[in-house]
Amino acid sequence: MNRHDALEKIATRLRIHSLRMTTAAGSGHPTTCLSMAEIAACLFFGEMRFNPVDSEDWGNDEVVFSKGHAAPILWASLAEAGILPLESLMDLRKISSDLEGHPTPRMTWVKAATGSLGQGLSVGAGLAAAMRLGKSPGRVFVVMGDGECAEGAVWEAANAAAHLGLKNLCAVVDINRLGQSDPTMFEHDLAAYQRRFRAFGWDAVTINGHRIDAVSAALANAGKSGKPTVILARTVKGKGVSFLEDKNGWHGKPLKTDELQRALDEIGPFPEVDAAKFVRRPKKAARPKISRNFDFPRTDYTEKTATRLAYGNALRALGKTHEGVIVLDGDVKNSTYAEKFFESFPGRSFQSFIAEQNMVGMGMGFAAKGYLPFMATFAAFLTRAHDQVRMAAYSFSNIKVCGSHVGVSIGEDGPSQMGLEDLALFRPIPGCVVLYPSDAFSAEACLDTAARHRGLCYIRTTRPATPLLYSKNEPFPVGGSKTLRKGENDVATVVAAGITVFEALKAYEGLKKNGITVRVIDAYSVQPLDVAGLRRAAAETGGRMVVVEDHYAGGGLGEAVAGALAGAAAIKHLCIRELPRSGKPDELMDKYGISARHIAAAVRELI
Amino acid sequence: MNRHDALEKIATRLRIHSLRMTTAAGSGHPTTCLSMAEIAACLFFGEMRFNPVDSEDWGNDEVVFSKGHAAPILWASLAEAGILPLESLMDLRKISSDLEGHPTPRMTWVKAATGSLGQGLSVGAGLAAAMRLGKSPGRVFVVMGDGECAEGAVWEAANAAAHLGLKNLCAVVDINRLGQSDPTMFEHDLAAYQRRFRAFGWDAVTINGHRIDAVSAALANAGKSGKPTVILARTVKGKGVSFLEDKNGWHGKPLKTDELQRALDEIGPFPEVDAAKFVRRPKKAARPKISRNFDFPRTDYTEKTATRLAYGNALRALGKTHEGVIVLDGDVKNSTYAEKFFESFPGRSFQSFIAEQNMVGMGMGFAAKGYLPFMATFAAFLTRAHDQVRMAAYSFSNIKVCGSHVGVSIGEDGPSQMGLEDLALFRPIPGCVVLYPSDAFSAEACLDTAARHRGLCYIRTTRPATPLLYSKNEPFPVGGSKTLRKGENDVATVVAAGITVFEALKAYEGLKKNGITVRVIDAYSVQPLDVAGLRRAAAETGGRMVVVEDHYAGGGLGEAVAGALAGAAAIKHLCIRELPRSGKPDELMDKYGISARHIAAAVRELI
Repeated sequence: MNRHDALEKIATRLRIHSLRMTTAAGSGHPTTCLSMAEIAACLFFGEMRFNPVDSEDWGNDEVVFSKGHAAPILWASLAEAGILPLESLMDLRKISSDLEGHPTPRMTWVKAATGSLGQGLSVGAGLAAAMRLGKSPGRVFVVMGDGECAEGAVWEAANAAAHLGLKNLCAVVDINRLGQSDPTMFEHDLAAYQRRFRAFGWDAVTINGHRIDAVSAALANAGKSGKPTVILARTVKGKGVSFLEDKNGWHGKPLKTDELQRALDEIGPFPEVDAAKFVRRPKKAARPKISRNFDFPRTDYTEKTATRLAYGNALRALGKTHEGVIVLDGDVKNSTYAEKFFESFPGRSFQSFIAEQNMVGMGMGFAAKGYLPFMATFAAFLTRAHDQVRMAAYSFSNIKVCGSHVGVSIGEDGPSQMGLEDLALFRPIPGCVVLYPSDAFSAEACLDTAARHRGLCYIRTTRPATPLLYSKNEPFPVGGSKTLRKGENDVATVVAAGITVFEALKAYEGLKKNGITVRVIDAYSVQPLDVAGLRRAAAETGGRMVVVEDHYAGGGLGEAVAGALAGAAAIKHLCIRELPRSGKPDELMDKYGISARHIAAAVRELI
Repeated sequence: MNRHDALEKIATRLRIHSLRMTTAAGSGHPTTCLSMAEIAACLFFGEMRFNPVDSEDWGNDEVVFSKGHAAPILWASLAEAGILPLESLMDLRKISSDLEGHPTPRMTWVKAATGSLGQGLSVGAGLAAAMRLGKSPGRVFVVMGDGECAEGAVWEAANAAAHLGLKNLCAVVDINRLGQSDPTMFEHDLAAYQRRFRAFGWDAVTINGHRIDAVSAALANAGKSGKPTVILARTVKGKGVSFLEDKNGWHGKPLKTDELQRALDEIGPFPEVDAAKFVRRPKKAARPKISRNFDFPRTDYTEKTATRLAYGNALRALGKTHEGVIVLDGDVKNSTYAEKFFESFPGRSFQSFIAEQNMVGMGMGFAAKGYLPFMATFAAFLTRAHDQVRMAAYSFSNIKVCGSHVGVSIGEDGPSQMGLEDLALFRPIPGCVVLYPSDAFSAEACLDTAARHRGLCYIRTTRPATPLLYSKNEPFPVGGSKTLRKGENDVATVVAAGITVFEALKAYEGLKKNGITVRVIDAYSVQPLDVAGLRRAAAETGGRMVVVEDHYAGGGLGEAVAGALAGAAAIKHLCIRELPRSGKPDELMDKYGISARHIAAAVRELI
């Protein structure tokens, strides 16, 4: 059988699988699979090269299903390629199966979880940049929906891919005209998409997405222009089943059993073809051999230093010993001090400009190819990438995120620039490690800890310079805390982190002068907390605790401690409880109730 | 003096103010003000029409400084227009002054807080749509930076404005070539911007942004094409001061006193001109008289109903009595049930397609003109608009946000679609009201409460249908709770909300059969919590409490309760503690530990 005929038959098989799977599951999105059956067939069994027994083969092409709701046809394609047993397809969406409703890397062929639309192109750009860096001969294909092109994240990625000249990146947009609840903004006006992608620097071709020869030719030509390529494929949602074709109201609806039978009757018999035979093997390629040594030399600090500056120093030092470190910036590298890495390692530095979503999405792509990406911006602006961070968690992505300029202690720039909700953004994510250093030594140690930890980590840094508290090589492990002041007769425990550690120490001195001693704990590991240590401290200090943080009340250190102690101590929580304004750092910390004076008063109220 | 000469002089005065203000403040962004001095002069004293004694005049043109770091020249322009005392400019960034580092509506002429870049165009689109709806003759000007055009949110807004045909919207991009830490992606390639905006359906003109005649003519022509217009202005960062002009490294740096003197010497004497005389007054226009009655008739439910469906019913009913209600959708209106409003009130319904950032940004624009916007999508996808929600808070914006499909109880679609961090997104915001109804009656009541409350509100709705618990007209005020089961000998209190209320009631029945009675509380007002009620319940039930929620551990109901009780009860917190997967709702709720069985076990462990 020639490839063209095989692809026709495979497309039909994929349609049949998608319909059967979703009916068996009782939920899912069959019509969005039907519109891309030829695209999937031509990708997996025509153009892509991959080693079906090794999802990590360095020569593999990669594919990202940005339109994650088309998961059934992804699983079906993997099954046809011999990667999954065909019978497993009927386990779609079962709690016991890795064939989830939307793709996640529980299935190793999936490099990033999708299902929150508009994110796949950034991941694809990151994969493509990583593969170019690592001299993989592979290419990256991103299958997108037309509806998701409304997401701004798509255009951040489009800019980045063109700017980086990622000719090994090819997007295929399945333009089936219909969104979930309405026709899309541009329906079948392919030129509207073409104008946009071309303006953003892409090679953009339009095709009939149901013609095997057209799809195959477009995929084969992708990248020949030297630019990233988008294939704009006119398709019909529900293609192949008359009562589904181009009909609104069928998004996310499986067919009932009788409807399925009618659909299968229309489509005709299940075609005979050994699809796996048509999988094209990759070129031989070896993952580059690079040093991955985590033991970077720490800096000798002798004076007050901002933790953000120490972060920058440590990042550069780590970059020297660990050649897999990649750094991405959102045009604030002179504030986060990522610039130190940029200056030393321009080849592993990626300027993402003011596009935080794409910064995180590309980072996920790098991580999926085994690199160790660090990305930083003002903590406040990480809210822009909240959805990408969330999806990074579902991707089991080994990315390291740093948020600088946290809290009212940034001062005069005002509330829009203050990270006051970043702990509440990262703490809910199961397994996410959140580290919050107070001095330069602990900042370097926290970066060390984050680098070695496998999985999502967040490091919170502070704008103003802070005094030195620790020594050069003191370890700051995940889940630890540091007891800074401890006496026999401590009447309460003050738990602080970052800049408030210094306020707590000031409060300690003031109280001591009045004969009151308190324990002072630096809870640098905000997540996981040192629960045992905090419980012990509470028990030893009369069950009285003050928690003080430069963050809003919800979701930060105070609630973390209250939740962990679960009633084992009376707690006073000092934090930012109103919308702040511009002012000097010290003025603001005092006005909003987190200065030494307020800590001392809280202790007095408790005892 | 003719207007042209006056505008030249005003531009110079604005430059001098900006330099002096930032030097006095010791921080701020003078060079980004210098690049737009002619733009500001031509806007405020050439093209715009506004009534300087009434920021709410319905005939006013509106301006949004999307490049919020140019706040000094905004304040200076208001002062030159006679709105602020000139001497107040020297209070920039002081804690006692409303002249903040980035604009906020503490100054009433500011319609939305800016400073998180790339958001202003959405707000502008919302203002323009609101003004068209309300038949205001005014126009909307959005001043943008070139760097922020990298933000995807800009392109979401660009799509929306063109799609809506907002010819009363004019953006001016101050293309000064330099970002914060690097040159921008396109530097002075104005054609790169022009191609992009034209492809997105805008009229896009390029000019020299330092020529008064060019800026004036472009502003006067804006909108004549019948499309939204962008004026792409080539400018020089630091323009007018030789040692600042087009130099990297001066972003966000004020001049030292001696540098200021050198700069002022170069610029020359402070020009004499009575700028206020050149302010053009608006056309007379009256705010439309519309019914704003909040008393909508509630639905008679008789059977299990999803809270999201009740939300849709209530929204339509409110839309009938309150003609200021506007509804925005992110192409999921058939899931959130906003479609009911769309069907009944197409003129006040805005399809934002899959562009959540723009949906929230436009909502802020509507709110700023006195409308009452409701916007809904899956709670998980509100993470996409986290930064816009954050800025809505700083804008004191009266927007109502609904997140549907929360928690693992959505079932088979899998984690990417589950809202498991939405409470942690909204709860940190000071003043934000968070309501979480459990049945259809309470859902309608919560919508009523949200509509009447002035300020940001979040309503959390559930996918599956839930039994009826309450009666038709029962009120659900902000800060309340409902005690559903109460006895003399309750050994513990179970606090639940939304779907877990029903699990709590099942657990109650099971425990009761074994002679154990517990109190059951529906904490529908997640923020503010009914702290007094919860403390009382804890005290009356042996200081034992179980909190159960369909949300991650961080930042949700459990930590809210733990924080509020501050040690006054021993708490068991049942919530989602690992990354979930696809499955049936009941299976998932049981697997992840929030079903009745787990609640009963937690009670037994406590006693």
